[in-house]
Amino acid sequence: MERVSRKEEMAALKEEARRLGFSTSEERDEALRLIAEGLERDWPQIRAANEADVQSAERDGLAPALVKRLIYSEAKQAEALSGIRDIIAAPDPVGTVRMRRELDDGLVLSQVAVPIGVIGMIFEARPDALVQIISLCAKSGNAIILKGGSEARLTNAALVASMRASLEKSPLGSNWIVLLESRSDVGEMLTMEGTIDLLIPRGSKEFVSYIMRNTTIPVLGHSDGICHLYIDESADLEMALTVAYDAKTQYPAACNAVETILVHSAIAPRFIPVLATRFGSLVTIHGDERTAALIECIPYQDGDWDTEYLDFEVNIRVVDSLGEAIAHIARHGSGHTDAIVSSSDSSIQTFFAQVDSADVFANCSTRFADGYRFGLGAEVGISTQKIHARGPVGMEGLMSTKYLLCGSGQIVADYSGSNAKAFTHRQLPVEGANRA
Amino acid sequence: MERVSRKEEMAALKEEARRLGFSTSEERDEALRLIAEGLERDWPQIRAANEADVQSAERDGLAPALVKRLIYSEAKQAEALSGIRDIIAAPDPVGTVRMRRELDDGLVLSQVAVPIGVIGMIFEARPDALVQIISLCAKSGNAIILKGGSEARLTNAALVASMRASLEKSPLGSNWIVLLESRSDVGEMLTMEGTIDLLIPRGSKEFVSYIMRNTTIPVLGHSDGICHLYIDESADLEMALTVAYDAKTQYPAACNAVETILVHSAIAPRFIPVLATRFGSLVTIHGDERTAALIECIPYQDGDWDTEYLDFEVNIRVVDSLGEAIAHIARHGSGHTDAIVSSSDSSIQTFFAQVDSADVFANCSTRFADGYRFGLGAEVGISTQKIHARGPVGMEGLMSTKYLLCGSGQIVADYSGSNAKAFTHRQLPVEGANRA
Repeated sequence: MERVSRKEEMAALKEEARRLGFSTSEERDEALRLIAEGLERDWPQIRAANEADVQSAERDGLAPALVKRLIYSEAKQAEALSGIRDIIAAPDPVGTVRMRRELDDGLVLSQVAVPIGVIGMIFEARPDALVQIISLCAKSGNAIILKGGSEARLTNAALVASMRASLEKSPLGSNWIVLLESRSDVGEMLTMEGTIDLLIPRGSKEFVSYIMRNTTIPVLGHSDGICHLYIDESADLEMALTVAYDAKTQYPAACNAVETILVHSAIAPRFIPVLATRFGSLVTIHGDERTAALIECIPYQDGDWDTEYLDFEVNIRVVDSLGEAIAHIARHGSGHTDAIVSSSDSSIQTFFAQVDSADVFANCSTRFADGYRFGLGAEVGISTQKIHARGPVGMEGLMSTKYLLCGSGQIVADYSGSNAKAFTHRQLPVEGANRA
Repeated sequence: MERVSRKEEMAALKEEARRLGFSTSEERDEALRLIAEGLERDWPQIRAANEADVQSAERDGLAPALVKRLIYSEAKQAEALSGIRDIIAAPDPVGTVRMRRELDDGLVLSQVAVPIGVIGMIFEARPDALVQIISLCAKSGNAIILKGGSEARLTNAALVASMRASLEKSPLGSNWIVLLESRSDVGEMLTMEGTIDLLIPRGSKEFVSYIMRNTTIPVLGHSDGICHLYIDESADLEMALTVAYDAKTQYPAACNAVETILVHSAIAPRFIPVLATRFGSLVTIHGDERTAALIECIPYQDGDWDTEYLDFEVNIRVVDSLGEAIAHIARHGSGHTDAIVSSSDSSIQTFFAQVDSADVFANCSTRFADGYRFGLGAEVGISTQKIHARGPVGMEGLMSTKYLLCGSGQIVADYSGSNAKAFTHRQLPVEGANRA
């Protein structure tokens, strides 16, 4: 009985997604305005819920960094509201024409952007992320089923209650948002192929890996961020020093912080001691033998090259060539973000061509790998997978396409066999054709 | 020991894929020329292998349609060779610049097309498909691990032996092609997440469904082709008749053939009897009650709306509105291809907006849903999934992207905090920037 009703609920969610898919741009922007107004109006209840969550978390001894992320302060709400205004101002992603082609006289094909359908989001105890992802779904016409970290349970419930109440006043209604509350619901989400079109898990790499291994639903995300910085023999060493320091220390808990610095042997004696001095006591260095001959450091141990420290810790390895650096990255990297510092165009082009990662950078910090910095608007996530979306993913990652073919009675029989008519296959401009 | 060597073989395949990814356009086209020459030269061995396969299949009582597909005649080889020439003539998909954006002075981001990596292909006993998919992989710089139908075992082995021998003379080498031979290998392929980036299964819908349910590797494909044709009250009935006949009978075993025809009640009495006459004894009709009142037919039974006949059999149902037709398609369709015949622009636009299928057509046959007819060049497959690629998929479906960021020493610290520099985020033209 319970199963049947859940199954019906899921079928209803798919139907909500289909209806949302053909809502108008005005309806979706109006819904976002109502959501923003509602969050302001309901601030007292939201704050009270968040204070209760934070008290419980502190009582349970949650790590201070996680408590900080859990706090939904007035400043964070202001940021969330400003984010919603940005999303309203962004162009409508639905209906954009990607391609138009005449197949024959009076037979015109177009490929247009449509919402993916039902997004399944599983995220850490971070209330501002919930506001952002629901807003992105509203803009892009996707239904959403979501489960937030249990430490934020009351805050998430208050936020979703506010948003759903606001949406009741909009033609979109509110049934396209489903908030799951129990841990067992996550397990059930993983089995919802056919209902959920795309899963977006956020959190620790162990958690994301677990999700990827335990579902047949497509997953957008990355499980590891083992990023490299290679200092070429031709590098401007002042630049290399600045970039290396930023890539490691600016925010070491981020997935795009560097974990291993590879240094060409020709400049290693000049560069590594200066870098070690710059890192000072802030950063713990694990060095290979040749590095250990130049500076004091923890000697390299098996497995270090494959470790994501996410902390003020870094590996340094001396290599004898660009090729050796690229081979190290191919073997130990996670395909997230890898960078070279070099003054040689040909070294940079080789690095760009041969490093197979989502983001390949030259002469700048790995920390630039981020949807906001890339100018993608709000970031849905960073993907290290190679299908659908790779690297920082903006609203584009929530979109699919469909083909529309407009004819005047054409049948395939006329284009088959010995007297087959030929197709013209003439590319047509997409400008002015937007919104099919 | 066995496991270790298979694991090493897989690591080697990933490395082959990475190397192939930065081969030049000239190297890949040259490899294709060598493959074509080799297939011509090795024709006697290939023919002998195929004749042996066909004899075994006939002895084992394989269905005539399947034997026909298994035969790799001189004509089929000629077609395959002509296909390779088309692929050589096609533009290089690798390195195409999709987007360029200035993030700040001297900090330029570009997104370029790169091969996905390792494609896993599982396909029916159809030797020409093997030639096509390997050629597409050569052009797009993807490594491939493939398993063909066991009835074509000797032919596949001869074709792959020929192609690998030719490739030995090319800088690409031949280790990027792995042909699996035993049925148990398929099971192993399904567990190769981390090695295989994309699985493309072909064959019966049961088979494709099985693959989709039993792997965590992304799968490109469709399991059902329950396609609909809706005849609107405003339809030109002559056109409707022609289109309906083509959509059902031109090649009923294809996934894009129509299975259910929905007819508006206002024209049903005029249209359905004429359609039944046109179908004559060729097509078996399953009709709902209102259809059965107009013509002789098999009365509708539970489950008919969800059946893919793949044969000269069709459902006919009378509906009272466009909305009822769309609701029927949402409930019973498989999201493959659905078409409307109508003279009303507004009905067509509503159908286009509200039917959530890979292909949505107006006033033409569902049978146009095909990569060749769409002008995509060779077809990799038809996808009913909503991520990565949807609808008929050409070489584009074998491509991923990476982000390249070229700086001059920029660090994220300068763009953070209270004195943060602003990003310019200025879109740059991609023309002339191709091949990054």
